[in-house]
Amino acid sequence: MLQESSVDSSGSRFAPLVVLELASDTKEEAITWLLSRIRDRQQNGGAELLVEQLGPGIGVKEKENPNMFLVGASMQRLLCGAEDLGLFKECTDGSMRAFTFASKHNFKDFKGDGDSFLSMAECQYVIKHELDTLRAKEETNVPGYSHAKLYPGKSIIRRLLSKGILIQMFPLHEKEELKRLSFSWYKKVKLSLQPLDDIRHYYGEGQALYFGFLEYFTFALVPMALIGVPYYLFDWEDYDKYVVFAVFNLVWCTVILELWKRRSASLAYYWGTLCRKKAFEEPRPGFHGVLGHNPVTGRAEPIYPTSKRHLRVYLVSLPFVLLCLYLSLYVMMIYFLMEGWALSIYDENPTFWTHILLFIPSIIYAVVIEAMNLIYRYAAEFLTEWENHRLESSYQNHLVLKVLVFNFFNCFASLFYIAFVMQDMELLRQSLATLLITSQILNQFTEAFLPYWLQRRRNKKMIRKVQKRRMYEEKELPLVEQVRLEADMSTYLGTFDDYLELFLLFGYVSLFSCVFPLAAVLVVLNNITEVYSDAFKMCRVFKRPFADPAANIGVWQLAFEAMSVIAVVTNCALIGMSPQVRSYFPESETQLILCTVAAEHVLLGFKFILTFLIQDVPKHIQDKLARLEFESLEALKKKKMLEASQLSKTIQ
Amino acid sequence: MLQESSVDSSGSRFAPLVVLELASDTKEEAITWLLSRIRDRQQNGGAELLVEQLGPGIGVKEKENPNMFLVGASMQRLLCGAEDLGLFKECTDGSMRAFTFASKHNFKDFKGDGDSFLSMAECQYVIKHELDTLRAKEETNVPGYSHAKLYPGKSIIRRLLSKGILIQMFPLHEKEELKRLSFSWYKKVKLSLQPLDDIRHYYGEGQALYFGFLEYFTFALVPMALIGVPYYLFDWEDYDKYVVFAVFNLVWCTVILELWKRRSASLAYYWGTLCRKKAFEEPRPGFHGVLGHNPVTGRAEPIYPTSKRHLRVYLVSLPFVLLCLYLSLYVMMIYFLMEGWALSIYDENPTFWTHILLFIPSIIYAVVIEAMNLIYRYAAEFLTEWENHRLESSYQNHLVLKVLVFNFFNCFASLFYIAFVMQDMELLRQSLATLLITSQILNQFTEAFLPYWLQRRRNKKMIRKVQKRRMYEEKELPLVEQVRLEADMSTYLGTFDDYLELFLLFGYVSLFSCVFPLAAVLVVLNNITEVYSDAFKMCRVFKRPFADPAANIGVWQLAFEAMSVIAVVTNCALIGMSPQVRSYFPESETQLILCTVAAEHVLLGFKFILTFLIQDVPKHIQDKLARLEFESLEALKKKKMLEASQLSKTIQ
Repeated sequence: MLQESSVDSSGSRFAPLVVLELASDTKEEAITWLLSRIRDRQQNGGAELLVEQLGPGIGVKEKENPNMFLVGASMQRLLCGAEDLGLFKECTDGSMRAFTFASKHNFKDFKGDGDSFLSMAECQYVIKHELDTLRAKEETNVPGYSHAKLYPGKSIIRRLLSKGILIQMFPLHEKEELKRLSFSWYKKVKLSLQPLDDIRHYYGEGQALYFGFLEYFTFALVPMALIGVPYYLFDWEDYDKYVVFAVFNLVWCTVILELWKRRSASLAYYWGTLCRKKAFEEPRPGFHGVLGHNPVTGRAEPIYPTSKRHLRVYLVSLPFVLLCLYLSLYVMMIYFLMEGWALSIYDENPTFWTHILLFIPSIIYAVVIEAMNLIYRYAAEFLTEWENHRLESSYQNHLVLKVLVFNFFNCFASLFYIAFVMQDMELLRQSLATLLITSQILNQFTEAFLPYWLQRRRNKKMIRKVQKRRMYEEKELPLVEQVRLEADMSTYLGTFDDYLELFLLFGYVSLFSCVFPLAAVLVVLNNITEVYSDAFKMCRVFKRPFADPAANIGVWQLAFEAMSVIAVVTNCALIGMSPQVRSYFPESETQLILCTVAAEHVLLGFKFILTFLIQDVPKHIQDKLARLEFESLEALKKKKMLEASQLSKTIQ
Repeated sequence: MLQESSVDSSGSRFAPLVVLELASDTKEEAITWLLSRIRDRQQNGGAELLVEQLGPGIGVKEKENPNMFLVGASMQRLLCGAEDLGLFKECTDGSMRAFTFASKHNFKDFKGDGDSFLSMAECQYVIKHELDTLRAKEETNVPGYSHAKLYPGKSIIRRLLSKGILIQMFPLHEKEELKRLSFSWYKKVKLSLQPLDDIRHYYGEGQALYFGFLEYFTFALVPMALIGVPYYLFDWEDYDKYVVFAVFNLVWCTVILELWKRRSASLAYYWGTLCRKKAFEEPRPGFHGVLGHNPVTGRAEPIYPTSKRHLRVYLVSLPFVLLCLYLSLYVMMIYFLMEGWALSIYDENPTFWTHILLFIPSIIYAVVIEAMNLIYRYAAEFLTEWENHRLESSYQNHLVLKVLVFNFFNCFASLFYIAFVMQDMELLRQSLATLLITSQILNQFTEAFLPYWLQRRRNKKMIRKVQKRRMYEEKELPLVEQVRLEADMSTYLGTFDDYLELFLLFGYVSLFSCVFPLAAVLVVLNNITEVYSDAFKMCRVFKRPFADPAANIGVWQLAFEAMSVIAVVTNCALIGMSPQVRSYFPESETQLILCTVAAEHVLLGFKFILTFLIQDVPKHIQDKLARLEFESLEALKKKKMLEASQLSKTIQ
């Protein structure tokens, strides 16, 4: 599976999977202690992994960090770790079951010693888990670092991370597999589906679900795009004809989101994450509090009262977010004032310079918005960190919510203002087109050009190294160089920004596309290039991320659903405002509004009923899950019956 | 625990728990076969229960059915059955755990042989479960009944029930405990909380949750009633002052429903039903289809395609329900026409007779509505039966939904019409008061008077029997007579009608109470009497029902929440229509409507956010559940580690 093996201190060869980079000035005693804890047997509370220091690079430089360590494990250890994690694997009968070492031969892909049974991403995930759950025993602090306090049960790796002694921990790329994956993913010219299973095999379920969602979303928009083109070609100025389009729009949005849940459940089932029980979540590295006992595990761990966190969330973060939203609204109003002012100057004196002046407000507004987004993002991260969430997932949810609301507001507030306060459909269409096209060009620039530039810089570096190397030998890039190269690559920060982009695009399409039917077409085009640029980014620009065994797209499903509810409201309002509908109620505006509101309520009700009726998990997968549960209950019953009959025999 | 024990055929005494009544003309071979299957050992596929025929009554009558059987079990068998069912019990450390026979001494109330460990209701539930899961082996039909087909795996009891060979199966009352319960429940005059734990102990969790909900609902309405009284006393005619009341109303409705979820989770946790895993559900007795294999259990069982059921639901039941709703609407319109016509006659010629004529339309309408309700109920039951649901729970849900929608429509359509089409607040208040008071009197009549009358009839019968008995002996009513007496009692049909009544009362309070603030007061009074009449009904009128280990109030939670969403809409509309609010928008009605709609959307959004923010399960119970899961994971891990170390030792 790995092209190269390395010799560990005890003499046996092992395949390196994960790299630990300690600070270059780490004290010797801390290193010795850490390595012995990692190597120690499980019975003694160690991780029982193989670990080895990385040798120096070929061209010896002073800058190189000597404290790089390669971590691996024996296949038996990895299989036991997979069992601890409760990884689900396909059985010979086609069902998915939790892997156990004892029943290993019932699993479909288990052959011989099970060398290729676990994917490299799974092996790396197992090692990450084992390192994360390596706990302090009697140590009160990291040897040599009296300020790095430890207590029995504290995760050692998390303490080292939070104190900056451990700089990073990352899994290694696998050149051959990556080459194959990138070829079938984005280097082929012909149009085909993404190799989702291969992506999952290499990057794990979280990544694969993102690309699966991106692909699904693109296909789901195709009917809308197909309907949008004739609307655009034949009725450009008659936006009142778009009532049918709007109705189609909002039914479609609901249906595609519901169907995605089913597709996501199918994918997650066959990837084994749908019914995997989550292990107990560790507190995140930054979490702090008074040392106490966790009520669930009984382990010593910092305790921070929930009420205090709630106070921080509701009395500081919430007002801050509202203030920022107000500020953003204020900036928007200034923009509209400036725009009106520029227009009046141009109307008075239409010269070349006043014509240019017309663009100034938009440019200033765009720059200010970008700056606000950036500042707000930092503020949101700071606040969420300060809220002191115990779990990484809770931290992520709070951060996503904060950033989401603000971005939504920044992107759509001006459109809402134009649509419902100014009621200027022509301007709405222009703004929507401008926003969509600009953001698309900007995205493609930052997601394709920037990576390309980074890639070129890396290439140059590699060529320099290769030239140096040629002096020594004529072989491939050695492991040492590969590790040091990967350690320098940027860290992939998760799918957050990718999902956020999709979320905003979904907003453009679902909220206002009835006045600009080409929106869906543009988004489809954008998504197609997005697949390529994201794939390129994943394969060439970033360090390999650890797999994330996700069963669904999490909080984003909720965000997209919330957007589709808002879409019902805006589309109904746009329909109600169309001259076509207005002409049905020539006398009474009240009647018109009441009818629109009634229609909106009916549609919302229908939407919720539809959400109930479309089952989240397809029937055949429900059956398989039920079968799994039924079998475990039956096995338990049989076991008990056996015990009872043995008991009665002994009594007799 | 039981006042009397009986001697079974093998000579050992046993406490009878459940009665099986077979048809009086059941063939001897069927009886012999059934009894042997019930008595057979579990290893041979029997139920391993004790069963005995009930002797003839004292005054021998030809009418008496000789085929009555008493079923009981040894304590060890009951404990094993409880383990199979996964009953949760309190441990010595205060947590709730699934009972296992092996760890029986860890449980708090387990003393000696465990005689009083299981409540009688639990024992009866165990026996019911064992009888229900008694399956056919090689039999192709019930002996003596060639039309009562059997196949391996078919539940024998369900086939006997569906063929009418088994008339009924019911658990016995326990006179002493019932006397104690009824005393503390409804015979005391002083106001106190209901003995929910005792109710649960005697009737099971489903019943206890109903009474818990009734009590909670009553207390939750007290603040509304307290606010309502001064409104009623000081501002009777100024309903425009009720804006504040309406806002309070809809926030309150949301909050109480959310808090009930928490209370319900607490109750269910301490009653052990919150985390109990449901056993695989058997098909209901009436379910039919082509014999096939269940995809989950692999057992032979009738298969009926889901698509066919969907066709029946969407193409027959749904149109039928809509037609009935239309019919109900039509009848309502005729009622309003008649009312207008009667009023015009009275206005023309106001005599005594024309004054009486004024009441005629209401009376006719009330009678027609009642008749329609009755017919519709039968039609709904027939249709839901015909839809051929596999599970009892699915059958119940479809039936509840059908009946709910129609009853909601019948009760509230006229109020909606008066409020929003006629916009006559005075009439709305009158109608609401009339409906509430009439339905209350009717309910108390049917729920308190009727039971009292039945009770008197029963008393007479009993006195007759006792007089007869006096000729023989001077002891208590013997078991034989008790069983025959209980067999004649009416069967309790579940909490459906009780919940429906609460649902409609909740509707009156939440939808329109801002125009009639006394509604909450009336409902509180009604609920207090309801507790007494329901308690009386349960203890004295009906056969004891089997316990139903429910963890929540199920589909009713959803129904109440749907009602509270509708309440937001109606209350906002009523507020928007109030003169007080109208006076803020003297010129533009459009502005008023837009503001009302905006406020409504904000409130609905707020309501959904509140639903998310208030956690369904209190934190301390979440912790306990997490702890349980964590412990089972840890135990599994420890076991595996032990196995692995043993394995490595054997290898060495």
